[in-house]
Amino acid sequence: MSDPQKLGPQKLGPLRLGIAGLGTVGVGVVRIIQTQADLLARRAGRPITITAVSARSKTRNRPVDLSAYAWEDDPVALARRPDVDVLVEVMGGSDGPALTATEAAIAAGKDVVTANKALLAHHGQRLAEEAEAKGRAIRFEAAVAGGIPVIKALTEGLAANQIRRVMGVMNGTTNYILTRMENAGLPYDQVFEEARQLGYLEADPQLDVGGIDAGHKLSLLAAIAFGTKVAFDAVELEGIDRISIDDIRLAADMGFRIKLLGVAQMTGRGLEQRMSPCLVPADSPLGQLQGGTNMVVLEGDAVGQIVMRGAGAGEGPTASAVMADVIDLARGTRLSTFGQPAATLVEPTPARATAPAPFYLRMALADKPGALAKVAAVLGDEGISIDRMRQYAHEDRSVAPVLIVTHKCTPEALAHALKRLPATGVLTGEPVAIRIENV
Amino acid sequence: MSDPQKLGPQKLGPLRLGIAGLGTVGVGVVRIIQTQADLLARRAGRPITITAVSARSKTRNRPVDLSAYAWEDDPVALARRPDVDVLVEVMGGSDGPALTATEAAIAAGKDVVTANKALLAHHGQRLAEEAEAKGRAIRFEAAVAGGIPVIKALTEGLAANQIRRVMGVMNGTTNYILTRMENAGLPYDQVFEEARQLGYLEADPQLDVGGIDAGHKLSLLAAIAFGTKVAFDAVELEGIDRISIDDIRLAADMGFRIKLLGVAQMTGRGLEQRMSPCLVPADSPLGQLQGGTNMVVLEGDAVGQIVMRGAGAGEGPTASAVMADVIDLARGTRLSTFGQPAATLVEPTPARATAPAPFYLRMALADKPGALAKVAAVLGDEGISIDRMRQYAHEDRSVAPVLIVTHKCTPEALAHALKRLPATGVLTGEPVAIRIENV
Repeated sequence: MSDPQKLGPQKLGPLRLGIAGLGTVGVGVVRIIQTQADLLARRAGRPITITAVSARSKTRNRPVDLSAYAWEDDPVALARRPDVDVLVEVMGGSDGPALTATEAAIAAGKDVVTANKALLAHHGQRLAEEAEAKGRAIRFEAAVAGGIPVIKALTEGLAANQIRRVMGVMNGTTNYILTRMENAGLPYDQVFEEARQLGYLEADPQLDVGGIDAGHKLSLLAAIAFGTKVAFDAVELEGIDRISIDDIRLAADMGFRIKLLGVAQMTGRGLEQRMSPCLVPADSPLGQLQGGTNMVVLEGDAVGQIVMRGAGAGEGPTASAVMADVIDLARGTRLSTFGQPAATLVEPTPARATAPAPFYLRMALADKPGALAKVAAVLGDEGISIDRMRQYAHEDRSVAPVLIVTHKCTPEALAHALKRLPATGVLTGEPVAIRIENV
Repeated sequence: MSDPQKLGPQKLGPLRLGIAGLGTVGVGVVRIIQTQADLLARRAGRPITITAVSARSKTRNRPVDLSAYAWEDDPVALARRPDVDVLVEVMGGSDGPALTATEAAIAAGKDVVTANKALLAHHGQRLAEEAEAKGRAIRFEAAVAGGIPVIKALTEGLAANQIRRVMGVMNGTTNYILTRMENAGLPYDQVFEEARQLGYLEADPQLDVGGIDAGHKLSLLAAIAFGTKVAFDAVELEGIDRISIDDIRLAADMGFRIKLLGVAQMTGRGLEQRMSPCLVPADSPLGQLQGGTNMVVLEGDAVGQIVMRGAGAGEGPTASAVMADVIDLARGTRLSTFGQPAATLVEPTPARATAPAPFYLRMALADKPGALAKVAAVLGDEGISIDRMRQYAHEDRSVAPVLIVTHKCTPEALAHALKRLPATGVLTGEPVAIRIENV
């Protein structure tokens, strides 16, 4: 009897790809397949070839030669071609052609490799169920943290662990903006405009600066980590657009940097998922992240803490991740989309983050006797004690910028205090509160 | 026709393990299987069970209940049991029972999961060929960098990359010793003795402090990275036993820390593999590594640089890595031991490291006029220019400790200079030279 699980000198035909989308990532995939054919065949155990490609414009000038491949105007037609084994979906977008092509590929009994976090954050559960009913795989290493093999690390490398917490900086554009603001001392609006001109921002910039893209990624990691259905809508989202250059400077003065940080953890009350600006120690691994680099931290009961760092975007890193999935399929590796059968994923109970944390509090006080005492009294009343406080000089003598780092307190206590502060009559503006994560 | 590569609701029986070795790692594996049975079955798609165990002493008191498992005095008998699907070899040792049990398992058509770097560094090529001829797998995630899923990242996650360089700190004991020397200001011999009493050192401490254990690991990574046969004998090995507290202090004074760092890269002249103490910037990710933490850096042509950090040893992390391999086998994932068929791995041409690097040079000069000029003249003659120099005060007025950081120079030029320095007549001892890696 032949054993299908045996390794050995079986002759496998080429794995034939249909590539939908020829932007940066699609071109990167084509380039790797064209330049590394021998390496790929040796490692995958069989050739990896491209049968057909599809994109919006056939005539657009592209830096790779596509003449050897069939062209499909319609990605759905590409997905259905009998000479395509795997649909590589690198078009993007949570709906539209990416969704219909993925559905068509699954319906036709093909595997799908995608770089599309929006698609999976919104439709991942249904698509995974459909794929698994057909005995087919959806792979998405490139959808989270670019070239960092974090989906593999979580789904396979840490599969024997109860995952305690997943966190990370997973959007390069926002990290670029925050880093650039600090390094050049420029205000948010100006750096935002720079990033737009450099082409770093998505067509809808809220996807980046609103934390949505990073939230998509976090929700996918959480599903794998905790065996829950993807719950993007339950991610507490907060963007970086309210971060001022003052906050960046004052945080630096206290030894911190501001990062758009995602945290997902399962608690007794349910699944916490938040993506929000946080202060992290400037000399910590997260604090040292510059520009478009991503970092993901995985914490398991057996393994402890694993930290992974690498490029979060770009042609090479993203194509590397897409091709890792393709090679897995070529090697015959078969996994459930989220690491266990989609039908066994449970609906999570969303829980707001209630764990105590230290907070950074910036406020502008009227410069009159007793102002600070009134603020301190409100904080004290709510059980919030002060770790460090600094008052800064200000051109406008009637206003005193004050910075407070609290000891650990609950977000609830903080919210109460923030609600009560205006009644003191000593604030001259809205206070800014940012969580501090000492990781 | 049924497709063996399909995912789906096929009923698979349990994957049955035989565990050879019940030390820290073996106990950790038993503990995970006993406490996480549901989680493992859900993720692996089938139950993972233990049939039988084996160790040197049956009566030794162990913190897990083994009464449900058959006992084998002889690990070879364990490996041959028809009710064992996978041999989990966690005994250690490059020969003896670990080798014979592994051979027996392969001969009997079973897969092997091992944490044994020494075994694979010495016999990996032959064992991989034997296993692959039988259609069986040898998996060794736990053999390198403990809980960090680095074998998986390199073999699978980065499989589409030409790997340019692999480097890392992969021996927790030496890193503990170096960290402790710096933090407590203690000399090598004293910290070595502490480490021995804490049980951190291998029975033969040269395995740790001589860099052998870390060299084993590097040689396994290099085989995967470059498609070459494991060439442990070609690793340029240098231990940490010559590192003095003076070097640690002076390096710190210049902004560096000393780490036992492994580097493997393929050059036009052949495969460079070295494991030696290096200076790294104190504020770099490698420089910030404390105690038993490991870090591995993988560099690929497409992905750029990937950095992974985590616990390099200990029950939980190592058992986590062993179980990741077991779950892969349970899921039906089948890979060649070194990422491509063992028969296709090529014999590497060993090459000594010739790339220029800056060096740290410590020497003691006779405190007389012109001493430093003579040293500088020799360095200049060899084309070595000085980046920074410091002369320190010393109790013994006749001796001047001098520290030089060179600009980049070839190891060959440095070796020439070191050979010529004694002839100047101004050295009062052997100079110490340590490579600086600015990573």
